[in-house]
Amino acid sequence: MQKEAVVGIDIGGTFTKFAIVDRLANIMGEGSIPTSRTNDAGEYVTHLANAVNASIQEVAGQVVVKGIGIGAPNSNYKNGCIEYAVNLTWAHGKIIPFVQLFKQHFNMPVAITNDANAAALGEMIYGGAKEMKDFILITLGTGLGSGLVVNGELLYGHDGLAGEIGHVRAKDNGRICSCGRRGCLETYVSAQGIKRTVFELLAEYTNPSELRNYSFNDLTSETIYHAATRNDPIALKAFEITGELLGVKLADAVAHTSPQAIFLFGGLAKSGDYILRPTRESFEKNLLKNFQKVPVIMSLLTEGNVAVLGASALIWQELNLHAHNGNN
Amino acid sequence: MQKEAVVGIDIGGTFTKFAIVDRLANIMGEGSIPTSRTNDAGEYVTHLANAVNASIQEVAGQVVVKGIGIGAPNSNYKNGCIEYAVNLTWAHGKIIPFVQLFKQHFNMPVAITNDANAAALGEMIYGGAKEMKDFILITLGTGLGSGLVVNGELLYGHDGLAGEIGHVRAKDNGRICSCGRRGCLETYVSAQGIKRTVFELLAEYTNPSELRNYSFNDLTSETIYHAATRNDPIALKAFEITGELLGVKLADAVAHTSPQAIFLFGGLAKSGDYILRPTRESFEKNLLKNFQKVPVIMSLLTEGNVAVLGASALIWQELNLHAHNGNN
Repeated sequence: MQKEAVVGIDIGGTFTKFAIVDRLANIMGEGSIPTSRTNDAGEYVTHLANAVNASIQEVAGQVVVKGIGIGAPNSNYKNGCIEYAVNLTWAHGKIIPFVQLFKQHFNMPVAITNDANAAALGEMIYGGAKEMKDFILITLGTGLGSGLVVNGELLYGHDGLAGEIGHVRAKDNGRICSCGRRGCLETYVSAQGIKRTVFELLAEYTNPSELRNYSFNDLTSETIYHAATRNDPIALKAFEITGELLGVKLADAVAHTSPQAIFLFGGLAKSGDYILRPTRESFEKNLLKNFQKVPVIMSLLTEGNVAVLGASALIWQELNLHAHNGNN
Repeated sequence: MQKEAVVGIDIGGTFTKFAIVDRLANIMGEGSIPTSRTNDAGEYVTHLANAVNASIQEVAGQVVVKGIGIGAPNSNYKNGCIEYAVNLTWAHGKIIPFVQLFKQHFNMPVAITNDANAAALGEMIYGGAKEMKDFILITLGTGLGSGLVVNGELLYGHDGLAGEIGHVRAKDNGRICSCGRRGCLETYVSAQGIKRTVFELLAEYTNPSELRNYSFNDLTSETIYHAATRNDPIALKAFEITGELLGVKLADAVAHTSPQAIFLFGGLAKSGDYILRPTRESFEKNLLKNFQKVPVIMSLLTEGNVAVLGASALIWQELNLHAHNGNN
């Protein structure tokens, strides 16, 4: 009997990566295509499907591919659509029935979920949450994403959109958010958010800082991290402010779903203790006493493969569910 | 074959009410005992068990009682304990293994959950959430309780303590809360919270108000409601402020679990449109656009029986689960 495998696909703003993955997270084949060379979703899907099919052909002797899992921004597990994804040229301002389009090219189950949910599944199946049934994963990238796992399953909610912790209100009359409202958590706690905090601090204080040499467009969260390692006062203060706000909102998240642990993942999370220490301090100070100590820890997955592994975990879980229910 | 029934018990600070309830919510027998005449949990349990057993004997010819469900403040479904319940004389500052104590008197399944969770189950099985799998119920009593239903089941979380929306942070450096922290939602949005808001407004403004005749101890949320019906400016403003804060935090709750609807229940919710209109306005203004309109509605259950019905729903659900799993 041939070994079973699935395809995991990670759709990012610039590149789309995919891999053929077995049940033990071994990668049997992989590839990538540019994401945003076209404004036509059908054209993108055909291009991607051809690349994936070519990879499947290459390993056809070794494995049989049983399904395809996709992680993508603004995607909805329940309706299979990518909805108003501002950073995908072919999905900007539109609802794309992505699963339906993709299934025209493949005769196997296809499922999609947003990137934070896919990362949470990856953490549960391959990472630090292996023994956990209730946890939260926070992605700190350009924005702030969250995947909530409850009783061993992703929390999707009524319409598939649960887990938008990036859009809880962090400040009354706060910063303008890309969602059109003010004060959302991700306007403070994300790679973009900490940049905005740095610029506020540069305006407020007179301390010398190497960050005074960067334009807003040139500044990155990595630059802020490196400045912090050199004890730059503005960079250090920016991490304090960011972690403190994150800690408060993680305590609120615990009051909703009472997880066993909270994992941090993504670009800004790579700043290590600079973000982790103030986050933990604020979190523990703000946690309702009834809750036992909930650890806030770094994801055990390396960024390189978590997205495709998470997407593959999505479809493995689907296949298991279908097997249990006796249909496919 | 005799008709099946269960016992639902509602432990309040003053009275403990119970009823024998069939699957259609018909009440076959009922009774009550005072809750807080003793500091000894064992004594209270024996008193309650005797009263419940007497009621069971009375209907022994008509029904066979299959289990006992209990709703009580600060109680934990997962470990069967009542933990640090400040308003129960025999549980103040202690962890009471209530289910274990109660089972010494009964040879049938016993389960306990907090009052807000019991009310949510009541709403799901007998009330306005009959067709819903994802909803939130908020109890606006002395404090603010919440029961979160996800995928047709109560969200308990890792340790049984999920659904503490009364203790999310509503204001930085806000009012002192009984939990020891500052700014918790229930210090603003609850019967006690709106009283505190009225006193703040009476201090801040000079408008004449009938509420200037009440001491803090004499003032109730009913008094504030009646003043509002007579267009008292302080009472009206207090409801506006209360509803606005509740709306913001309900929008945040939707960002966590994406429910189909939110139900309001309890003393303060009886103020009808005075609380509902500003809550809805603020909620809709603050809801992330991606979410479809989520209705904020009054519970369909009447306060008189919801607590015991909710507790009976808890044990009906347990009995169904056990039947499906083939054990009891």
